[in-house]
Amino acid sequence: MKRFKVQGARFKGNALTPEELRHYLEERRVFVDEALERYLPGAGDPPKEIHEAVRYSIFVGGKRLRPILVLAATEAAGGQIEQALGAAAAIEFIHTYSLIHDDLPAMDDDDFRRGRPTCHKVYGEAMAILAGDALLTQAFILLSAEPVSVDIDPEARLKVIQEIAQAAGSKGMVGGQVVDMLYEDREVDLPTLTYLHEHKTGALIRGCLRVGGILASAGPEQMEALTRYGERIGLAFQVVDDILDLEGSLEALGKQAGSDLRKKKATFPALLGIEESRRWAHRLVSEAKQSLVIFGERGIALGAIADFVVMRRR
Amino acid sequence: MKRFKVQGARFKGNALTPEELRHYLEERRVFVDEALERYLPGAGDPPKEIHEAVRYSIFVGGKRLRPILVLAATEAAGGQIEQALGAAAAIEFIHTYSLIHDDLPAMDDDDFRRGRPTCHKVYGEAMAILAGDALLTQAFILLSAEPVSVDIDPEARLKVIQEIAQAAGSKGMVGGQVVDMLYEDREVDLPTLTYLHEHKTGALIRGCLRVGGILASAGPEQMEALTRYGERIGLAFQVVDDILDLEGSLEALGKQAGSDLRKKKATFPALLGIEESRRWAHRLVSEAKQSLVIFGERGIALGAIADFVVMRRR
Repeated sequence: MKRFKVQGARFKGNALTPEELRHYLEERRVFVDEALERYLPGAGDPPKEIHEAVRYSIFVGGKRLRPILVLAATEAAGGQIEQALGAAAAIEFIHTYSLIHDDLPAMDDDDFRRGRPTCHKVYGEAMAILAGDALLTQAFILLSAEPVSVDIDPEARLKVIQEIAQAAGSKGMVGGQVVDMLYEDREVDLPTLTYLHEHKTGALIRGCLRVGGILASAGPEQMEALTRYGERIGLAFQVVDDILDLEGSLEALGKQAGSDLRKKKATFPALLGIEESRRWAHRLVSEAKQSLVIFGERGIALGAIADFVVMRRR
Repeated sequence: MKRFKVQGARFKGNALTPEELRHYLEERRVFVDEALERYLPGAGDPPKEIHEAVRYSIFVGGKRLRPILVLAATEAAGGQIEQALGAAAAIEFIHTYSLIHDDLPAMDDDDFRRGRPTCHKVYGEAMAILAGDALLTQAFILLSAEPVSVDIDPEARLKVIQEIAQAAGSKGMVGGQVVDMLYEDREVDLPTLTYLHEHKTGALIRGCLRVGGILASAGPEQMEALTRYGERIGLAFQVVDDILDLEGSLEALGKQAGSDLRKKKATFPALLGIEESRRWAHRLVSEAKQSLVIFGERGIALGAIADFVVMRRR
């Protein structure tokens, strides 16, 4: 098995063309998918029912934005992507577990995601709860496993685990989902909505960047820059998500468009208007890119990903 | 704050009197409860709703058998309990998360546990799912945190994380719960029931013993002995649980007695008869105690805990 197909990304000039970005994201997505395949229990491993449900949810699709960010942050800070592949996969496990649990009837009650039935619609609620639990746990099996990131200092590996667990925990991603649930049928103001998304999606995205920094032994200034970048694009990502959801249609999005609005969920466009939301997203992305200056050419990929966040059509 | 109130346990002779055992278990329970208090986010930490639900579930009661086993295994292998307190608390977090999720309507649908309403009855299903997720994650926050187990080698800390994550994951505890769900309304034979419990409860109990061994830098023979002990008492614990459930009453147990039978769940007494189940439990405990010989006097507490497993009335 070829373990590392993709070479480190090096680009000339100071930006990627849209074509280069498209190629880069696709190449990295395939690379990440291979790692996910390698780091998950096999579909036939007993009890096979749980591993089927886990694999269904992981391979139902996705841009793999979070693992790609981990790899890009590692490279920006002078590291090698081989060092970061395990952590990148672990974060995708955690992201996927959060989607499975968020989709449950007791939570957002979503029947479709990315155009396909959600885990609990296919495997039942009990198995979906357990598939989420299994994926969250698998992340830590992977992060603490011997064969992964062999050339990483044990202290650094513990720091990575700490960073990811904090980002995913009750003061991070889980905390954001809690606030989302609490305000399901209540008026939400902008500070609360911002808090919600900075935790629900922002914390883990910020964590991706910081994990890349830790793995590349980034210094305090680089860590600070990666953190700032992560916070800005994390929030921009959600603002754009809200805009796309408002604009989208069932065919284009693979989930019921406008579903957040129908449930009276607060969104940034609902609070700020769509034009102000767009301006805000661009401002956040611009700030994210400014913080990349200290990385020089090595920050080009992160810069292009920031552009992708505002330009994407899902 | 007094960090370590309880001194290492040293007993004379080669067994504990029932009174000594009672005193030992109670002292350790209080000690563990103090650690749980210290290692959990505060009840007022935002979002406070999740931390209330988490704390309700942790402090609803319990024997703290798993953390006590971690501490006792550490001492048996020549270590200090101070080294093991974080890992002991982390395992109790994981045990409690598993109870919260198992009690959910989509799973065992239990309204009461230890005589008090289950997490989802008090805080709702969404919050209960999230409280479980938060506790599982909190275990890994704790295990990778700087201030805990400062005198443990980083390599050993990674091994502890690996051990616990494997025990809790889809080939351990979660896998056991999967099989439990799959056979909910089906005939179960003895090998399947044994597999179920060796994973659902056995894997984490086995993990307690091995974690203690890792933290005390146990050699291969000691690890083997702790593993064998853990496997035997893990299974004995479940056999006795089934017997007690059959015999119990609502008042005595704090949960609906005989509920497993009413749901047509297979139990060891149902398959083997109650007398044969009792004999089996005693045989398992006897085997567990035999494996403690290599620890000499340091294994006395583990020996007494093994006796407690068969003699307890919950």
